[in-house]
Amino acid sequence: MAHAFKNCSNLMVTGASRGLGLQIVESLVTGGFSPGNIIATARNPDGAKELQMLAEEHQNIHIIKLDVTCQESIERAASEVERLVHEEGLNCLINNAGINVVANLETVTAHKMLENFHTNSVAPLMITKAMLPLLKRAAAKGTGTGMGIHRAAVINMTSLLGSVELYWGDRANTFKWYPYRTSKSALNMVTRCLAVDLEADGILCMALHPGWVRTDMGGPEAPLSPEESISCVLSVIGGLTEKDHGSFLHYTGEQLPW
Amino acid sequence: MAHAFKNCSNLMVTGASRGLGLQIVESLVTGGFSPGNIIATARNPDGAKELQMLAEEHQNIHIIKLDVTCQESIERAASEVERLVHEEGLNCLINNAGINVVANLETVTAHKMLENFHTNSVAPLMITKAMLPLLKRAAAKGTGTGMGIHRAAVINMTSLLGSVELYWGDRANTFKWYPYRTSKSALNMVTRCLAVDLEADGILCMALHPGWVRTDMGGPEAPLSPEESISCVLSVIGGLTEKDHGSFLHYTGEQLPW
Ligand SMILES: NC(=O)c1ccc[n+]([C@@H]2O[C@H](COP(=O)([O-])OP(=O)(O)OC[C@H]3O[C@@H](n4cnc5c(N)ncnc54)[C@H](OP(=O)(O)O)[C@@H]3O)[C@@H](O)[C@H]2O)c1
Ligand SMILES: NC(=O)c1ccc[n+]([C@@H]2O[C@H](COP(=O)([O-])OP(=O)(O)OC[C@H]3O[C@@H](n4cnc5c(N)ncnc54)[C@H](OP(=O)(O)O)[C@@H]3O)[C@@H](O)[C@H]2O)c1
Repeated sequence: MAHAFKNCSNLMVTGASRGLGLQIVESLVTGGFSPGNIIATARNPDGAKELQMLAEEHQNIHIIKLDVTCQESIERAASEVERLVHEEGLNCLINNAGINVVANLETVTAHKMLENFHTNSVAPLMITKAMLPLLKRAAAKGTGTGMGIHRAAVINMTSLLGSVELYWGDRANTFKWYPYRTSKSALNMVTRCLAVDLEADGILCMALHPGWVRTDMGGPEAPLSPEESISCVLSVIGGLTEKDHGSFLHYTGEQLPW
Repeated sequence: MAHAFKNCSNLMVTGASRGLGLQIVESLVTGGFSPGNIIATARNPDGAKELQMLAEEHQNIHIIKLDVTCQESIERAASEVERLVHEEGLNCLINNAGINVVANLETVTAHKMLENFHTNSVAPLMITKAMLPLLKRAAAKGTGTGMGIHRAAVINMTSLLGSVELYWGDRANTFKWYPYRTSKSALNMVTRCLAVDLEADGILCMALHPGWVRTDMGGPEAPLSPEESISCVLSVIGGLTEKDHGSFLHYTGEQLPW
């Protein structure tokens, strides 16, 4: 599906300072996937040394400052993205930035729940809203019919841990993370609500689980390397069509239950 | 199932000032359902005239002040409930208080999302956590085996609008309420997480949709009266057994998809 990104002029990813966000940028520029402009956002670009180095080597990487929980920052970033993409609009928005405020029943507090919800569920909504004019522009201009990154798509990086259905029985005794699980279930609903609202404009919207990956968040025991995960993730994104609109997919492309 | 409440010594309901919470109290004392003590909480008891009147007529109604979004208030209420229920513990906690911060894609803000999430998803978690010692006590003391309100149960008043699965196709063009839908999906995950954690103590936990009801929230066009809804709701609650643990039920007793 690498060739699919040929029709994607402008792609944006949040949380590109490290982990999966950084890997998305790296795999895109080095792996044969090749969208026009890669807009890599980070809340602290100066501290994102690896991203800076990549951007020095590849002129199509543009770094923009974005703290996803700050509305002012979102609006400032939207203006900058607008200046970059002009009339072409934005073909692909990957809401990847996320946190895991680890807490079980004993340690959970209202503050921890709200903090995780803000970053993981509310921010993707507010960012999508801010980028909507640019997504609409790309969807309207996009070559071909149907839905996909040749027009415009919003990808929300969710987690298997956000599946209410799957958290039961044998699976139920690992990762008793109230704030994280709840935030990802909420993100799944946000995704579905957005899918309903963006459909008329031809903008695809879906939720994607990247697998359990060895990043700062995933930890050293995770089975997948960032390269392995993101190679699959980009294949799934490149192959998205209208049948995937409003879906919750595993990085292998299988459908997951809510 | 009215007789089931005979084995329920102490029941608590939040948001009992009006709407479904008030109706629960009224139907319990007047409808043949009859738990020992009904602990009716309200954030502003002085303004809850109908509840006050009911409590004057029925000595087993105890009004306690509780703002569900305030941790101090939750802890104070927990101490008062403890003094009321003594060694018997709490057999049934109904997390009913809720708000609908109406907002569509155009009007939604981070603040509205956080506000609705706090009341509808975080509060039931924090209240359950505070009542846990009392729920455990009741579950341990409860007559009979299995699960249900004869031991201890946590009922979270959720909504069909929180089903991610059902918000699609024909159903997808009504009630584009981002904060409310998201908060109820999140509450469903909270319910499921709690169910996993409370199982070992024999405390049942489930999510219940009361139907679309003519309250301040439901509006005048809803098909059900509060009496009709709550009569079914109490039948479902009275009939809960271990097979309903961790479930999402319609007020008619049918299972709903997440
Ligand atoms: N790793 C896994 O196994 C796994 C599994 C399922 C889902 N996911 C999801 O995949 C996504 C990426 O995870 P990851 O493993 O790459 O996590 P990570 O290694 O912890 O990286 C998180 C990224 O999000 C950024 N971020 C956090 N809060 C931010 C904010 N307020 N504003 C801007 N950026 C912010 C971080 O930026 P800073 O460097 O500035 O902190 C960092 O770039 C997350 O949504 C995660 O939930 C991961
Ligand atoms: N009505 C429906 O059609 C329907 C459908 C599906 C689900 N539900 C759910 O059923 C539950 C009850 O709904 P309803 O129709 O009875 O709503 P309602 O008529 O609007 O009453 C809401 C109740 O919640 C209380 N409340 C709100 N915020 C509170 C807080 N911070 N602290 C304490 N109490 C608070 C209110 O107290 P005050 O009087 O002090 O404001 C009031 O007692 C809600 O969870 C709702 O989401 C209702």
